[in-house]
Amino acid sequence: MTPTPGPVGAVRQGSLRELNLAVVLGRIAAADRPPSRAVLATETGLTRATVSAVVEDLITGRLVTEAEPAPRSGAGRPARGLVLAGNGPAGLGLEINVDYLAVCVVDLAGRVRHHTVHRADLRPVSPADALSRLVELAGQARAEAASQGLTLAGAALGVPGLVDDAGTVRLAPNLGWRDVPVPALLAGLPPLTERVDGVPPIVVDNEANLSALGELHAGSDGPASFLHISGEVGIGAGIVLDGDLFRGARGWSGEIGHIPVHSAGRPCRCGGRGCLEQYAGQEAILAAAGLDRADLPADTAPVRLTELAETGSVDALRALHEAGTALGIAVASVVNLLDLDTVVLGGGYAPLTPWLRPPVLDEISRRVLTAAWSPVTVRPAALGADAAAVGAAGSVVRRIIARPAGWLARTG
Amino acid sequence: MTPTPGPVGAVRQGSLRELNLAVVLGRIAAADRPPSRAVLATETGLTRATVSAVVEDLITGRLVTEAEPAPRSGAGRPARGLVLAGNGPAGLGLEINVDYLAVCVVDLAGRVRHHTVHRADLRPVSPADALSRLVELAGQARAEAASQGLTLAGAALGVPGLVDDAGTVRLAPNLGWRDVPVPALLAGLPPLTERVDGVPPIVVDNEANLSALGELHAGSDGPASFLHISGEVGIGAGIVLDGDLFRGARGWSGEIGHIPVHSAGRPCRCGGRGCLEQYAGQEAILAAAGLDRADLPADTAPVRLTELAETGSVDALRALHEAGTALGIAVASVVNLLDLDTVVLGGGYAPLTPWLRPPVLDEISRRVLTAAWSPVTVRPAALGADAAAVGAAGSVVRRIIARPAGWLARTG
Repeated sequence: MTPTPGPVGAVRQGSLRELNLAVVLGRIAAADRPPSRAVLATETGLTRATVSAVVEDLITGRLVTEAEPAPRSGAGRPARGLVLAGNGPAGLGLEINVDYLAVCVVDLAGRVRHHTVHRADLRPVSPADALSRLVELAGQARAEAASQGLTLAGAALGVPGLVDDAGTVRLAPNLGWRDVPVPALLAGLPPLTERVDGVPPIVVDNEANLSALGELHAGSDGPASFLHISGEVGIGAGIVLDGDLFRGARGWSGEIGHIPVHSAGRPCRCGGRGCLEQYAGQEAILAAAGLDRADLPADTAPVRLTELAETGSVDALRALHEAGTALGIAVASVVNLLDLDTVVLGGGYAPLTPWLRPPVLDEISRRVLTAAWSPVTVRPAALGADAAAVGAAGSVVRRIIARPAGWLARTG
Repeated sequence: MTPTPGPVGAVRQGSLRELNLAVVLGRIAAADRPPSRAVLATETGLTRATVSAVVEDLITGRLVTEAEPAPRSGAGRPARGLVLAGNGPAGLGLEINVDYLAVCVVDLAGRVRHHTVHRADLRPVSPADALSRLVELAGQARAEAASQGLTLAGAALGVPGLVDDAGTVRLAPNLGWRDVPVPALLAGLPPLTERVDGVPPIVVDNEANLSALGELHAGSDGPASFLHISGEVGIGAGIVLDGDLFRGARGWSGEIGHIPVHSAGRPCRCGGRGCLEQYAGQEAILAAAGLDRADLPADTAPVRLTELAETGSVDALRALHEAGTALGIAVASVVNLLDLDTVVLGGGYAPLTPWLRPPVLDEISRRVLTAAWSPVTVRPAALGADAAAVGAAGSVVRRIIARPAGWLARTG
């Protein structure tokens, strides 16, 4: 239960109102079923009058709405439940990956209201041009959101690389980016969203981290600790421990793609040797299946791989088995180290789970010391290729819920 | 600052006293310099009278003592600082490893007051006999503690394997133990310590976890997040994140010894292949240096290895370089995954740090994606081979500090 606010005398009036808005909105967001004003008063320890005033502000500000239509008349009106509004602020989620751009809009309640995945090889494209294309897609998303009554209140962008606190992409080896100051480049382009106090116009983060967050919030009954692996051209992981993303000392955790699976093996773009990416990255799998030389556009190759596996192509099945074995060796290291019992195959891996899972489980049972007592679950992600964008948009929404006063100040 | 206790009306008198004892003792334990009663009253929000009564109980119970002798007379007596007692309860720390037994006694302030390391190959010894030998050493420690005015209030035992919640060693591959019910076996032997309410007579834990805890509490100014590697016959790791040991879903994290460094390499006792232990475990290093066949007792071989390295023996230096390279490959995986910036070489690795560190750093700089921006520190542990026993004893002491009422109830 949310604790009651501290002593009134010690808090400025403005801060007290902000606190009450956040406490009440937080309860509505976390509730299993729409709470009435009376229930909110009991749960927060605020007076009925305060709760009513706060709820009125939240409704006027399009953050909350009443779940059922109020009956026109009659004795003992039923209490109306309150839910997060579907026509208020929304988060804009963006992703730039090696072979696609993704854009999505998520409303306060976490529903995906719009999404687009645009397939294109972005390696030959400059960072400025890639961002420019993304802003164009975002403009379409913004118009689409407006037509649904939603206002974009902030944006987050996932990239397949290492991002510093200022939003600069220090290194994205598979994109060929190094020291790209994303916020500065975006500043010269049309704005993506409204300006809302307390919500940064753009947050840049690692796509594997955002995908793991998306997966965490997509499955309400899932385990609170899991390893989420994003299998694209590069391979990244998000480590969720007790319901929180574990970021590491500098936010650069989860670089599972550079765990050596054959330490004297193939050279990697990172400078190392035998990295997982060289055996289980999307291009490695396609090459092993003979699809890199096939006469078909690069962006349809993953779909073709799945089709070939479904029809029992020996080359495709062998390629997937080899990739799954390499993946299993790396996953075994992670499980030995972190004692996680759930591994989620996300991004491009999700549709390949039927073929990747058996060799991954084989390596786990062979190499994990504790496998005999505690089985590890390997399952596909609930979200698809847009997990990072959905996770990014969700992070914006959670920021608004945590501090609604910033949004309300904007709308008056 | 410690929060003040909750409303008096809501807490039973007994519980309130327990809470006040714990709050005051916790402040004394955490203080940089000995606090006076007046300072404690300010910091805890308790009245001066309550603090004085609580301190009196703590002094009578041998948990706290006054730092300086009180002046006999004179105007404006100086306030006397309070410190943890050096003649009260103490923790008994135990370790059974492949080639030694260790026993130590740590007082409330964390000082090691007694320790013994008994070298012997324990693989041919049954679990019951190993425990019996340990209990004999513990009896000597208990007598030694008594002669220093200390009372053993609980014990913790580190073992190189997987331990379940009941204290059963499910698997210790290098000892050859499987499903050994340690508490039941100890129940048939003389008691190790006094019985204290709230302190389990014996806690069994993984030795690498306890070593990491020992290291965490040994260095007050060390980083709050680090990887501590215990290099013995087996290799275990303790992962400390933000000042807490990360245990994983079932408490079985840190099995770095079974990270594959050459995935198709040498078979390992665990059933896997190419595990780190096969290249950087103590026996692997000694064998590579030609010391396994040398005409000297097994327990002096590690010392001989250090001597040979110091005198520039080519075989010893090559063996250490190869072990360090394997260790570096595994450490690179951990750093890629967890983004830790400090690696502590503990146990048998500590004295070998001068030779292991260069190849470890080489592999990190070659394989860790972020190495260019953020250097990783590799340093020897502050504690030696008795780190697990010290960490074990410290865990007992911290339990008493967290709940002093149990100890006081015993002494009346």
